[in-house]
Amino acid sequence: MTATDTTARGGASADARADVVAALRAQTIEVPSWAFGNSGTRFKVFPHAGVPRDPYEKLADAGQVNLYTGIAPRVSLHIPWDKVEDYDDLARHAKEQGVSIGAINSNLFQDDDYMLGSLTHASPRIRAKAVAHHLECIEIMRATGSRDLKIWLPDGTNYPGQDSISGRQDRLAESLAEIYAALGADQRLILEYKFFEPYTYTMDIPDWGTSLLHCLALGERAMVVLDTGHHAPNTNIEFIVAQLLRAGRLGAFDFNSRFYADDDMMVGAADPFQLFRIMYEITSNGALAADSGVSFMLDQNHNIEPKIQGQIRSIMNIQEATAKALLVDAEALLAAQLAGDVLGANSLFMDAYNTDVRPLLADIRAAQGLAPDPIAAFTASGYVAKVAAERVGGTQAGWGA
Amino acid sequence: MTATDTTARGGASADARADVVAALRAQTIEVPSWAFGNSGTRFKVFPHAGVPRDPYEKLADAGQVNLYTGIAPRVSLHIPWDKVEDYDDLARHAKEQGVSIGAINSNLFQDDDYMLGSLTHASPRIRAKAVAHHLECIEIMRATGSRDLKIWLPDGTNYPGQDSISGRQDRLAESLAEIYAALGADQRLILEYKFFEPYTYTMDIPDWGTSLLHCLALGERAMVVLDTGHHAPNTNIEFIVAQLLRAGRLGAFDFNSRFYADDDMMVGAADPFQLFRIMYEITSNGALAADSGVSFMLDQNHNIEPKIQGQIRSIMNIQEATAKALLVDAEALLAAQLAGDVLGANSLFMDAYNTDVRPLLADIRAAQGLAPDPIAAFTASGYVAKVAAERVGGTQAGWGA
Amino acid sequence: MTATDTTARGGASADARADVVAALRAQTIEVPSWAFGNSGTRFKVFPHAGVPRDPYEKLADAGQVNLYTGIAPRVSLHIPWDKVEDYDDLARHAKEQGVSIGAINSNLFQDDDYMLGSLTHASPRIRAKAVAHHLECIEIMRATGSRDLKIWLPDGTNYPGQDSISGRQDRLAESLAEIYAALGADQRLILEYKFFEPYTYTMDIPDWGTSLLHCLALGERAMVVLDTGHHAPNTNIEFIVAQLLRAGRLGAFDFNSRFYADDDMMVGAADPFQLFRIMYEITSNGALAADSGVSFMLDQNHNIEPKIQGQIRSIMNIQEATAKALLVDAEALLAAQLAGDVLGANSLFMDAYNTDVRPLLADIRAAQGLAPDPIAAFTASGYVAKVAAERVGGTQAGWGA
Amino acid sequence: MTATDTTARGGASADARADVVAALRAQTIEVPSWAFGNSGTRFKVFPHAGVPRDPYEKLADAGQVNLYTGIAPRVSLHIPWDKVEDYDDLARHAKEQGVSIGAINSNLFQDDDYMLGSLTHASPRIRAKAVAHHLECIEIMRATGSRDLKIWLPDGTNYPGQDSISGRQDRLAESLAEIYAALGADQRLILEYKFFEPYTYTMDIPDWGTSLLHCLALGERAMVVLDTGHHAPNTNIEFIVAQLLRAGRLGAFDFNSRFYADDDMMVGAADPFQLFRIMYEITSNGALAADSGVSFMLDQNHNIEPKIQGQIRSIMNIQEATAKALLVDAEALLAAQLAGDVLGANSLFMDAYNTDVRPLLADIRAAQGLAPDPIAAFTASGYVAKVAAERVGGTQAGWGA
Repeated sequence: MTATDTTARGGASADARADVVAALRAQTIEVPSWAFGNSGTRFKVFPHAGVPRDPYEKLADAGQVNLYTGIAPRVSLHIPWDKVEDYDDLARHAKEQGVSIGAINSNLFQDDDYMLGSLTHASPRIRAKAVAHHLECIEIMRATGSRDLKIWLPDGTNYPGQDSISGRQDRLAESLAEIYAALGADQRLILEYKFFEPYTYTMDIPDWGTSLLHCLALGERAMVVLDTGHHAPNTNIEFIVAQLLRAGRLGAFDFNSRFYADDDMMVGAADPFQLFRIMYEITSNGALAADSGVSFMLDQNHNIEPKIQGQIRSIMNIQEATAKALLVDAEALLAAQLAGDVLGANSLFMDAYNTDVRPLLADIRAAQGLAPDPIAAFTASGYVAKVAAERVGGTQAGWGA
Repeated sequence: MTATDTTARGGASADARADVVAALRAQTIEVPSWAFGNSGTRFKVFPHAGVPRDPYEKLADAGQVNLYTGIAPRVSLHIPWDKVEDYDDLARHAKEQGVSIGAINSNLFQDDDYMLGSLTHASPRIRAKAVAHHLECIEIMRATGSRDLKIWLPDGTNYPGQDSISGRQDRLAESLAEIYAALGADQRLILEYKFFEPYTYTMDIPDWGTSLLHCLALGERAMVVLDTGHHAPNTNIEFIVAQLLRAGRLGAFDFNSRFYADDDMMVGAADPFQLFRIMYEITSNGALAADSGVSFMLDQNHNIEPKIQGQIRSIMNIQEATAKALLVDAEALLAAQLAGDVLGANSLFMDAYNTDVRPLLADIRAAQGLAPDPIAAFTASGYVAKVAAERVGGTQAGWGA
Repeated sequence: MTATDTTARGGASADARADVVAALRAQTIEVPSWAFGNSGTRFKVFPHAGVPRDPYEKLADAGQVNLYTGIAPRVSLHIPWDKVEDYDDLARHAKEQGVSIGAINSNLFQDDDYMLGSLTHASPRIRAKAVAHHLECIEIMRATGSRDLKIWLPDGTNYPGQDSISGRQDRLAESLAEIYAALGADQRLILEYKFFEPYTYTMDIPDWGTSLLHCLALGERAMVVLDTGHHAPNTNIEFIVAQLLRAGRLGAFDFNSRFYADDDMMVGAADPFQLFRIMYEITSNGALAADSGVSFMLDQNHNIEPKIQGQIRSIMNIQEATAKALLVDAEALLAAQLAGDVLGANSLFMDAYNTDVRPLLADIRAAQGLAPDPIAAFTASGYVAKVAAERVGGTQAGWGA
Repeated sequence: MTATDTTARGGASADARADVVAALRAQTIEVPSWAFGNSGTRFKVFPHAGVPRDPYEKLADAGQVNLYTGIAPRVSLHIPWDKVEDYDDLARHAKEQGVSIGAINSNLFQDDDYMLGSLTHASPRIRAKAVAHHLECIEIMRATGSRDLKIWLPDGTNYPGQDSISGRQDRLAESLAEIYAALGADQRLILEYKFFEPYTYTMDIPDWGTSLLHCLALGERAMVVLDTGHHAPNTNIEFIVAQLLRAGRLGAFDFNSRFYADDDMMVGAADPFQLFRIMYEITSNGALAADSGVSFMLDQNHNIEPKIQGQIRSIMNIQEATAKALLVDAEALLAAQLAGDVLGANSLFMDAYNTDVRPLLADIRAAQGLAPDPIAAFTASGYVAKVAAERVGGTQAGWGA
């Protein structure tokens, strides 16, 4: 089978196929530095051989992901895990690995002071400390050329009555305003929400509505981050994507997949059809383009699978979902929708989903000089054995370091 | 035990007790006309003897609820179920029963035209029809002196691809704007959200964020309605209450309870502690007062239990939750919260919840000349047997009529 | 692309392909008579033109499903909805339509007596009535040659304290034993479980464990029915399939799909990957074969989409999931699993899922003299317009009749 | 108010009150040694001052819980965390603290070998290692006089296809049989189930049905452990309690509470009404008695609240729920249930729940020479400050040690 056959069955003409290929070639996905370190559950972190011991080694691994996929040119950093002496040097090293620095992620969950909150804490001293941490992150953004300050607020409470829900909102609004004021004119604050965890009764930003209200209060450069694992059971995530795009406030995705909670598995592993529906909202609303303001990022753990390959696989899964979304015959679909043809519209949608786009993507990779099967090519390269042999001693990177 | 003992254990002084009593005496709850008709599941509607056959009989039943509880002076109507020839006459009848007309509820789910949507339908004709229905409702509001136009939008889709998520939002925004423009200066549009049902893939207003965005676009007299049964599993509802109050956009509650989906059981039956937490957000944020703009309404089915008693029981459950919420020792709680005393703050909260407030409410009823046990008194009145004997022939009211 | 290409990519040799084709050709799916009648939600049943008015017309519609798919030779009946004067005549009519009678479904949810229970009711009279209904069903099984008595027990309670959980189990066990005793030696009792609905606090058979315990107590011809829409959120259904197969007690599937509750949508519409995983447990555990004792049935509503086409689409979706499951390279997968190659095993599994099997199924249909696209062929036949014109007057079939 | 008033309102006579008091005085609850160590989430473990550094100190803390509540005479141990040189000495030390050794818990989640499973692992070597660990635990049971070997199996998979669901069941059955065979005639194997975590796709014992099937296969001394936090969203836990009691296979509870996942919060903190309903199934089915074979244990984390007080509070919450359950007027309830009086039966149930039983429990404590408010008395004792001063240096106990 050739890719032409594929797209033909998807209903696209040769011109349309060219558009699909162009869109896929323009797509980029940002990978997180922490995906290359060890991670786990509250019960156990299983160590893996060859795991990076510092930000330089993480960037080297990220460079491999980009080398074999061709669409992962940026790496998110996490502060303080990725603090270095010389950010110019780090940026230079990144460039050598073929990547650049993406979003800067702050950390509000690992300081003993933050047990009862950070930006929301009742104590002005602790709030000031948490704000100051973000001012440091903004400095690092300037040093590394990063555009986005990403804030995941882990704050919340475990017990009813433990703290005032609205009091915490007020303190949060004040803290965020201080941070926002420190941003440069070309920098953004992107604000994540999460349904639960680490706290078990309230989260201070549990849903997209809360994140959006804070963004609206802050200003135009405050945008919502949608992590695909951060919702209540059964939530329709593509609806939220559409809603945030309609409001002009979707700043970024944290992609991963889950069956239960915030499982942080490889993207598309749990529900590839959901991933397709999400990407369809992106493509059909014109948000795939580089200038859409939507940043596509991974955020996941590879607790039991190899980490670099896990990143590559996630990227391939997003590419396949994107390709399928682009293959939806928009004209025919609109006609069926306007005609109230429920089954016909659904069939057109499923036709694209049921298409095997792997040959198309293999063609695109080949045209770029990449191996058609990135995981096989990476595995064959011997990189894993090489770093396992080299990275001996020191402390493996992980969430705690 | 006396009520004094109760409040004493709750930590309140005599002055505080007077405040609690005053707040409880000022509380009002609106009952829905449809709660007195037959209802059921998609599998079966079980008929009950004595069920009203027209709006006049529904108001008579609602009058009984108010007669025995003393805090249910308003009745929501549902159009077209409660359409009559002469609304002046209906209002006069309501007054005779000791009640007045509350919110007017529109109906967007029972016309064959609305199978694929109403205010969101792809067809301009059907959207215009749905808008016109609301203009009729506004006329009825004028005729009955009703302040609130309540819209529960049942629109949605069942299958991925069936319709455009954002296209439907655009059409919804347009339809709502037409309705809002027809409201009088002292009238409000209150907009409900619902997670799922009757549609199974998307709902066009599935969450508080979507409802709020539409309200913000409409204007200051558009407010969100929170139905306690309309959320994803595990959603923290009191957080949403706090958030909507903070935004100044909580217009009304539809109270009921649920274990699974939108079960529409008696209020407080499934999770009385959740009801307490919700009422605590109300009382602690000053939203119980009559001038807060928050309307407290019931919306439930009594499929297998007697309907009038089901309404009375729900009201009593809300009263008890409210009394407990008012008994929280605010000063001590704030001190514990500011001190980071997790267990102490939770204990103070639970102390109020664990208080038996039934004696206090019995005292308040007695002071108002009401029987201390409203259900026992109603049962003893013989009303049920009387209407069962009288209401013979005709068609019992229900969701379909 | 040819089907050969497809299977080649799935990793199967020519011999393996022949096995896949043989297994797909042997697969049969039973359709429910009630799927051709009107259905809906508690809010509204939308009528459709041409809907059958009696069991004969339902069988005619079911005959169409089999005519175009070639794998739907049996039709489940629902008593009393499908009661007729002469079952020999009905069986003869079925045969003329190319189908035969499958399972007999009892109805325990539409009699006023059953408001508080049927087989579990506190009243011996009502339990006896419910048992007697099943004895009548067994008579109909004899008259129609049906093997399976399917019991979905809708019994439950809405309020804590309403009835004794264990008392109801005892009464249920007794009622089921009476029914089981009346079965012939070649007949089975297949017992469904459901998480919630129509009751909202307890269901008397809410989970597979409860159903299995009753089956174990009854005897070897009592088997569990798994309805894919009858589980708690996030439940791993394929695990239950594997578990029931291991216990030798999986009697049948009721296939449908859902995003939220028991949505009863077309099979595979909500989560095609889940359907694939379920079918993989079937194929990999040898339970697809006709003699496995597992009956594959549809149970769904077509509230807004055309009903015959909805059934055809569901069957096609099951076929595609089955084909993909059969394409899993079992040998390679086992090797990866034994080697602890998490990513490799998952990749092999996904390779089969990502294969486009529509060409393969089109080839199989062509080889059987069927149209490659069953829905297009059925639509082109003009049957819908014909029955819409013919079926005028009378009462359309639905859940209430 | 006196306790007599309380029980009077609950509808109980003086004789009945004596029965209630007797049942409450006979109740015992087992506490886990690990609750006194540090715990947390995957994001952070917050250290607390005064946390024990070895099993001896844990037992001392547990002794405090029993000293102030009077109903916590046993302590569960966790192996290897609580391994010591001399178990006689440990038992002697326990006795000095006023407690004895309860269940022995094995650990299958912290060895690097167990990344892909323990009792279910594909490797015979690793399964043998996991079995051997349990043989060691059985030795410790003999040394400490423990009756129950508690197995929580954390095994599972993260990705579809990663391993064979039924293959893992077969290996599990084999491993469990080896362990069971090593038990003494007066020892039990109690087997826990868990919906998800630490694995995110399958758990090898995800539900009560799976645990029960294994217990049935093992023999009469294999019983199911119900952890209240280990179920799918919306699961009716009291139904499972009733079902396991009916099957004679409820071996033990792990009590805790949760809003979302396995949050392991203080018992009764999230849903006190659910706790009451659970305890009602216990009391109404005669399973509170010491000879019922049901062991009542706590299993929770105190991540942000003080640990000893968290245990005391949990025990008090269970006591209150038990007292309320005992106050249900069984005779009147049965009459209402048999009469089909839905509202009346629910009201009787709620009357007991709404009773303030704190005075009754204070009376019982006073009669035992205990302080009426255990937390206040413990706080006043100065124990916390004392151990914080004494326990300096060494390594605080936690899940990792």
